[in-house]
Amino acid sequence: MKLTKETNILIVGLGVIGGGYAQALTKQGFTVNCITRSASTVDYATRLGMIAKGTTEIDAEMIGAADIVVFALYPHVFIDWLKEYQHLFKSGALITDVTGVKGCIVNTVQELLRPDVEFIAAHPMAGRERSGVEYADDKVFQGANFIVTPTEKNTPEAIEACKELGRILGFARITELSPERHDEMIAFLSQLTHCIAVTLMTCNDSPSLEEYTGDSFRDLTRIAKINDEMWSELFLLNRDALLCEMDRFSAEFTRLRDMLANGDRDGMRDMMRRSTARRALFDKPAK
Amino acid sequence: MKLTKETNILIVGLGVIGGGYAQALTKQGFTVNCITRSASTVDYATRLGMIAKGTTEIDAEMIGAADIVVFALYPHVFIDWLKEYQHLFKSGALITDVTGVKGCIVNTVQELLRPDVEFIAAHPMAGRERSGVEYADDKVFQGANFIVTPTEKNTPEAIEACKELGRILGFARITELSPERHDEMIAFLSQLTHCIAVTLMTCNDSPSLEEYTGDSFRDLTRIAKINDEMWSELFLLNRDALLCEMDRFSAEFTRLRDMLANGDRDGMRDMMRRSTARRALFDKPAK
Repeated sequence: MKLTKETNILIVGLGVIGGGYAQALTKQGFTVNCITRSASTVDYATRLGMIAKGTTEIDAEMIGAADIVVFALYPHVFIDWLKEYQHLFKSGALITDVTGVKGCIVNTVQELLRPDVEFIAAHPMAGRERSGVEYADDKVFQGANFIVTPTEKNTPEAIEACKELGRILGFARITELSPERHDEMIAFLSQLTHCIAVTLMTCNDSPSLEEYTGDSFRDLTRIAKINDEMWSELFLLNRDALLCEMDRFSAEFTRLRDMLANGDRDGMRDMMRRSTARRALFDKPAK
Repeated sequence: MKLTKETNILIVGLGVIGGGYAQALTKQGFTVNCITRSASTVDYATRLGMIAKGTTEIDAEMIGAADIVVFALYPHVFIDWLKEYQHLFKSGALITDVTGVKGCIVNTVQELLRPDVEFIAAHPMAGRERSGVEYADDKVFQGANFIVTPTEKNTPEAIEACKELGRILGFARITELSPERHDEMIAFLSQLTHCIAVTLMTCNDSPSLEEYTGDSFRDLTRIAKINDEMWSELFLLNRDALLCEMDRFSAEFTRLRDMLANGDRDGMRDMMRRSTARRALFDKPAK
């Protein structure tokens, strides 16, 4: 499938990420429709010109007209939706998603889906600490990573179309990973960091800390404002990989603690120098 | 002491923080001199108009003319300096610092200092992940916290003059803490966060992680670029308080890990909701 301005795009679930997709694609001249839960979201997105048409209904005509359907729903809602309504897809439609875990999603979806539509999974790595369409902002995609997670069931055309979607959305780096490798990566880079931020926020309830805080604490806890419904689901869907990363982090943290307890300044300095050198790899590419 | 444009200010150690002080105070019309280790730093600061005069020598006249002397040196260098050169201070001079730990510094300095000069300690909570005068930028003080840590040996006038200095530098919130309470606070808000960032950076050396990273990992590891000489010294100077905070963090992190392992979604959601509510307290005040 080649993406052109005639490609009809349907977004299911117009939250902060689905809304960002709608903004970016509409700006690029695509026709973007949406199905979402609440009428106020449809009103808001229509008023701001983010979408062509929106509805809270299962609109068979709108679904049947879509060449690409982007699901931006919670994982379990996404799978239930497909079971119930996949008969409405146009034959040849491309289905994609924005889900933060892949292993347990991709295989399930590819197995339950009609053979004449194709599911190609993707993870736009640009979240925000708020949810809801009012916080959608396609600028967060600039400079960010977009990971496509194909399986051997995917066609080269679908993989290419999905990457093209990432480019159109404005992502800086488009990469491919297997669903399993993606989940290991995400356990470390995203889920572990959220575990740390939440722990940091709840482990010390001394009053007035906020009067003395500097930017480092603020940076480490920005993501401690967390959507508990979504993240608890994502953690449990990726439990083994996340436990493995949590244990790896704990072991290294204990090593540092013991060096401090033993007054091993050289050991601490060595660790800090390796940290400094490695962190340089992670600087954000210039926009 | 009342700060006026006639107040002569000497900064000893023109690095990223001392340099920021020089910029801010010079902009506000004060005469700022400096003594620092390297001639290239003096050249740089003079060329950029950050200081009136600078030298790498122990200039007795310059020291003797200063009404306020700000030390922005590593803790052990600071104390050695005082032992050797404190006889050069003007009688009645006010001595202050920018050191990140206080308990072990303040008492030592107040005990060794001549009775006719006064040491009032302060901690400007605005670091940068780089060191050196080239990275000095007084804009980082805006919106940040400035903590004064007096003891019963300090006069109300010196405390007030030090707070006034913080205001002139542009800090948003000026507060007072005892040196001991300051160090507990700093162990949690600043040192623990640096331990976490360094650990996160060194616990997983999988290749290519940087190709997939999102902003949360970048935020949590910004401070993993760390001056190993300074921070290892600060950690060891505050060892007991930091160990206590590391252990507190570890216990809570293990609690979260066990909830995940046991599939306790309600427990995780409760922790996330408390995290979200508490994090709102820490939002940066509007500038």
